[in-house]
Amino acid sequence: MAKVQKRSQSEYLEQVEAAIASEDNGALSATLAEMHPADIADLLEALPSGKRLLVWAQVSPGSAGEVLIELAESVRGDLVRGLDDKSLADAVQSLDTDDIADLIPIFSDEVISRILFAMSKRERQQLDTVLSYPDDTAGGLMNVDMVTIREDISVGVVLRYLRMHQVLPEFTNKLFVVNRNGGLVGELLLSKILTSDTDVVTSEIMLTDAVRFGVLTPASEVAAAFERYNLVSAPVVDDNGILVGRVTVDDVVDVIREGADQLLMAPAGLSESEDIFAPVARSTRNRAVWLGVNLITAILASWVIGLFESTIQKVVALAVLMPIVASMGGNAGTQTLTLVVRGMALGTITYSNARSVLMREIMVGMWNSLIWALVMGVVAVIWYKNYMLGLVIGMAMIINLIVAASAGVIIPLAARRLGIDPALASGVALTTMTDVAGFLAFLGLASLYLI
Amino acid sequence: MAKVQKRSQSEYLEQVEAAIASEDNGALSATLAEMHPADIADLLEALPSGKRLLVWAQVSPGSAGEVLIELAESVRGDLVRGLDDKSLADAVQSLDTDDIADLIPIFSDEVISRILFAMSKRERQQLDTVLSYPDDTAGGLMNVDMVTIREDISVGVVLRYLRMHQVLPEFTNKLFVVNRNGGLVGELLLSKILTSDTDVVTSEIMLTDAVRFGVLTPASEVAAAFERYNLVSAPVVDDNGILVGRVTVDDVVDVIREGADQLLMAPAGLSESEDIFAPVARSTRNRAVWLGVNLITAILASWVIGLFESTIQKVVALAVLMPIVASMGGNAGTQTLTLVVRGMALGTITYSNARSVLMREIMVGMWNSLIWALVMGVVAVIWYKNYMLGLVIGMAMIINLIVAASAGVIIPLAARRLGIDPALASGVALTTMTDVAGFLAFLGLASLYLI
Repeated sequence: MAKVQKRSQSEYLEQVEAAIASEDNGALSATLAEMHPADIADLLEALPSGKRLLVWAQVSPGSAGEVLIELAESVRGDLVRGLDDKSLADAVQSLDTDDIADLIPIFSDEVISRILFAMSKRERQQLDTVLSYPDDTAGGLMNVDMVTIREDISVGVVLRYLRMHQVLPEFTNKLFVVNRNGGLVGELLLSKILTSDTDVVTSEIMLTDAVRFGVLTPASEVAAAFERYNLVSAPVVDDNGILVGRVTVDDVVDVIREGADQLLMAPAGLSESEDIFAPVARSTRNRAVWLGVNLITAILASWVIGLFESTIQKVVALAVLMPIVASMGGNAGTQTLTLVVRGMALGTITYSNARSVLMREIMVGMWNSLIWALVMGVVAVIWYKNYMLGLVIGMAMIINLIVAASAGVIIPLAARRLGIDPALASGVALTTMTDVAGFLAFLGLASLYLI
Repeated sequence: MAKVQKRSQSEYLEQVEAAIASEDNGALSATLAEMHPADIADLLEALPSGKRLLVWAQVSPGSAGEVLIELAESVRGDLVRGLDDKSLADAVQSLDTDDIADLIPIFSDEVISRILFAMSKRERQQLDTVLSYPDDTAGGLMNVDMVTIREDISVGVVLRYLRMHQVLPEFTNKLFVVNRNGGLVGELLLSKILTSDTDVVTSEIMLTDAVRFGVLTPASEVAAAFERYNLVSAPVVDDNGILVGRVTVDDVVDVIREGADQLLMAPAGLSESEDIFAPVARSTRNRAVWLGVNLITAILASWVIGLFESTIQKVVALAVLMPIVASMGGNAGTQTLTLVVRGMALGTITYSNARSVLMREIMVGMWNSLIWALVMGVVAVIWYKNYMLGLVIGMAMIINLIVAASAGVIIPLAARRLGIDPALASGVALTTMTDVAGFLAFLGLASLYLI
């Protein structure tokens, strides 16, 4: 359970910066000792990488493991390299099995064997179980510490049994009722235990139809179920219905956060663990590929413009106005795309209702294109005293906003069908289409009607 | 506690669509009766508005209140208009006080007075309390049903007291320990009650330094604390330390979801409750303003191009290549902007470390601009057989990527200082700057060196 923070996070940041400036390691570790591991993690993420290592060196060994768990992946790797194998193994020892499993990929073989060596046989088996499922499944999310009981015991016996525990695992809001083979037969809420008479038998008050997940249930489905059904914890069973672990709401909050980050960051070609304080060389590399892809699409759009060089030479106003047509298409398309990608992530947009979404977006695009085509047409006529130019840009805008609405619906659905992440690829594909369609419609119509 | 769904959500959607198609209201209500209110809400959101009302009419009165709570705001309003006052008041009666408070703004006075009339005096007071705080504070988030105890009673007495309850409020993972005046003095975890001997006194095992929120603590801070400290519930106190309610993790998950949605949707000029199935007229209106703002910025950029009409007339290649410079700036700037806006929302980027973020982003921008300026320079030379043109476009790209990196950091920080939502306004401001700077640098340099 967390303590109230004595100071605000920004006060801590200032204290730490001051301690670093005056090279006062004593003050630094005193400040860190006051802080919660999650707050230390936030602090480390907010520091440039040089200072990060200085502060990390002063984190107490008892907190280091929990700090690692709370850190963004990109930062974690750097700091692990700053600890020797023994300290690292010690730091991790006290963590939950599922947390250790999360860290395994960044550890060297030496560290892993140290950790395994210090574990009991049971713990090693549990770790094996968790590691055998992909990260983004219920099996990968679950932890293995939970309290199980039999269905034929009374509430009084359950109470005595619980009293034998020093502590219950975090987020224990229910006990799992299992049979002799470990098969899950029901769940008993702590609140039910507390409000029932001691002579009532478990089987009479347990829930038998509550939500359970298979080991391979996707993490996104697990998160959706927790959100819908307001869960604190839920059991995970294998193919034979044997209880193998439980998912808890803290891990689900992380899944929700990561999913949202991915939707936000992918359209800019960023990974959700992109670190704003990473070394410049690494950030440059991470972002360069994306800019390269965009350069290629920009060159493609320019090539389309190049087809109309002679037209532009005759009516230079076209060069001035053409970015407007492309830009309006890009913005309108991005609105549709954002809604569709989000709807797909939440499951409200599926292939079965895609057609009605498409029709609707085209209608919205058409109305908006009529409004703004009219406005822009008038602006162009006033600017260049050329009625035909106004007509051409208006028509081009109508065409491009309809293309934009269609592309905003079709591209992400097609991407998913092709197995490509819709959030990552759709934005570039969309603006390439609206650029090309915008330039083509505007300059094409101009070649036909203005020359 | 939720039941396992008998069918998948898309199967339900198909069943419902089939029932609507055959106008079989019996089948429709039978399908809905099988579903969890949260799933009905999802289903309603995924239907076009005509069908939505048909389905809503068949939702059982017992579920209607909970369905309303789970719905997106934009959809909620439409459906409320589809119920008469009495049914509405009945549907809402069974909800928690904080949920009723959330719905009050969309109810007519008639409905509100019906609801108040059916409430006990105590419930009315509780509703008043919740309504008196803004939505986005701990006071607005909290619910008022919780179990409180005194510090001098033993675990055995606590157990007897709890057994007098039929049920405990949802998400009760702890009891709140209060003094005679209702002042919060500590918290007693259910798991502690269950693992302690019956003769231990509450004051010996309660937590006294756990996280508590003031009524006016911003919802975003509450959410951050829940995420950091892995909370299930936490107390809310007024200025005098009197316990007035508790925040639970389900409401926090909603806050996290809404915050993430806002970050995702605002840059496209969409509100986070934008409904992809709303009537076309409403969507057109919602999006038109944004497109209008973008049209103005696009015209501004075009005006800059217009300053160089005579240059473009002489070297038409400039018209072909200029969108590339603007587009690379826009993409690079968007990468920086996305990271900065997200960092500001999470609190890792503040005014105190903004300078180092700015320096870093400029460095990253510089390196990337060198790489892609070189590539694009070579492409331009090959395309137009003009060395000077290659040099000019390369230099323009370097300038624009540095502008982009700076704008990506400075704009959102300035927006916040001006009291404008950084997620909403920064994207437009950024692309306006990169368009203007890109055209100005490229066409300006061309006027100097190519003519």
